[in-house]
Amino acid sequence: MVVTPAKAGLDFAAIKVGEGYMIVSADPITGVVDEIGKYAVFVSANDVATSGNRPQFAETVVLLPQGSLAVDVEILAKQIDKAAKEIGVTIVGGHTEVTPGLRKPIVMATVFGFVKKYISSGDAQDGDTIMMTKTAGLEGTAAISRELGIPKGIASQAVTRRARRFLGSISVVDEAVAAFGTGQVSAMHDCTEGGVLGAVYEMSIASGLGFELKESAVPVAPETNILCSKLTLDPLKLIGSGSLLISVRSGKEEIVRNALKQVCKATVIGHFTSRERVLMKADGSESRISSAPEDELWRALSGRR
Amino acid sequence: MVVTPAKAGLDFAAIKVGEGYMIVSADPITGVVDEIGKYAVFVSANDVATSGNRPQFAETVVLLPQGSLAVDVEILAKQIDKAAKEIGVTIVGGHTEVTPGLRKPIVMATVFGFVKKYISSGDAQDGDTIMMTKTAGLEGTAAISRELGIPKGIASQAVTRRARRFLGSISVVDEAVAAFGTGQVSAMHDCTEGGVLGAVYEMSIASGLGFELKESAVPVAPETNILCSKLTLDPLKLIGSGSLLISVRSGKEEIVRNALKQVCKATVIGHFTSRERVLMKADGSESRISSAPEDELWRALSGRR
Repeated sequence: MVVTPAKAGLDFAAIKVGEGYMIVSADPITGVVDEIGKYAVFVSANDVATSGNRPQFAETVVLLPQGSLAVDVEILAKQIDKAAKEIGVTIVGGHTEVTPGLRKPIVMATVFGFVKKYISSGDAQDGDTIMMTKTAGLEGTAAISRELGIPKGIASQAVTRRARRFLGSISVVDEAVAAFGTGQVSAMHDCTEGGVLGAVYEMSIASGLGFELKESAVPVAPETNILCSKLTLDPLKLIGSGSLLISVRSGKEEIVRNALKQVCKATVIGHFTSRERVLMKADGSESRISSAPEDELWRALSGRR
Repeated sequence: MVVTPAKAGLDFAAIKVGEGYMIVSADPITGVVDEIGKYAVFVSANDVATSGNRPQFAETVVLLPQGSLAVDVEILAKQIDKAAKEIGVTIVGGHTEVTPGLRKPIVMATVFGFVKKYISSGDAQDGDTIMMTKTAGLEGTAAISRELGIPKGIASQAVTRRARRFLGSISVVDEAVAAFGTGQVSAMHDCTEGGVLGAVYEMSIASGLGFELKESAVPVAPETNILCSKLTLDPLKLIGSGSLLISVRSGKEEIVRNALKQVCKATVIGHFTSRERVLMKADGSESRISSAPEDELWRALSGRR
């Protein structure tokens, strides 16, 4: 019996199995080449982790362009295995093929786990504090520095090198499990397309709530800031896997922050309300958010400014 | 705990869950356009069904070429829903996106079910009779008549029309469940790439056995025969989803045939041995099979004869 079907803004489906539940999510990675195996495992694992539980198993499908070599298959398989081990996931099976007509590899992972209890992104409560882990636009910062290459003169080599390493932070599994363990968390959601703003918007839709999000409170890494200001991108709308949104019962923020201390930084960035969806901009103005923002990464990669 | 990891020739992975098992398989459909949603659900469901059990759930990923319309998404979603209902599978979630650079749609389904007991294609026993359901090359016959179009003069319109309808037979779920229910079946496998010969070969490898397969015993539909003879294809090596290989305890063939009577035809085509892998050709000669045959469909679609 499906108890939580996947729908817009929810990260996973939940199925009743015996006394517990199976949490499952499937995602494809289609836009990147570098470390695509790692992305695929981490991104689907993140979806399952937002339930508050560590994912356990993954089934993968790898599609390669014609002309791919045995060594390409091996590299990808190693990326997948390494990423899975890093977060404690067992690869149970998969399918690898060369697909005529493909320009870039595509990797899909269906990740799942068996759990006793869970929350979803649709469980946020009116008055909850919105916290986020790490910094905004982590995934986009890594993708731009790895795929696009950063144009000369925009950032120093040291910045570019550090930006590329942001890929190492795109798992939210550890922080999701630690946050849920406090018992003070109503809902969680990962920041994927549309960045922090997109994720807060999705969570508010899934939970039937409004929000007040403070732009000035959203932590942005110096590397992300440099890239975004030079490329005129909004870091709040930059694809952000690696950053977890946590809807925390009001007054319990310190408990969550303490539980996460060993894992990563967590910052209060706003709260859910029963009113409108409002972004309080750094310049003091307010902006009503009435639709999911378009992600900045596609604009950056397609060269539109 | 993974008790049966997916490997070459096995159709699914099995994971211990509580007192039972979860059976799971993921497959992409990349080569066809027409009814791709149905293919995707049926082909992965077939893998799970070879365990002897009806699949219960599916998670889908749909990738569409740029320029796809909302109506394309709807058509695909309807195909997936209809196919799932037909075999009693609940779609629990999915992901749909437009993927830049794609020439044809790609649909992946991860299908799974929770079961009490199961068999795999690696469980065939020395001396077992090999039976197959329906006729050889069903999927290939449907694909050639739908994708390639049958060149004029090769077959009448009536034959082409009937050949296209073979797509309606590519599920083996009902027959797999009925056959397993007899308690006389050691192992099952579906005939995908490499056709009946490829499937018997894979099953023999997975079970560590040899076989004697009688070419003249393999049932081939008139429509498949016409296409294969005109296109000089070997129906035994033509991709054959829709036909199930069943490894039956010697002497119990009638029991299985009777159990399947309401579902489809089942035919004895050979047996497993502890010796070599031998195809007994219709002309009386014998051929040792030492590797998986290349599927005839790719040859047909690429125009190589």
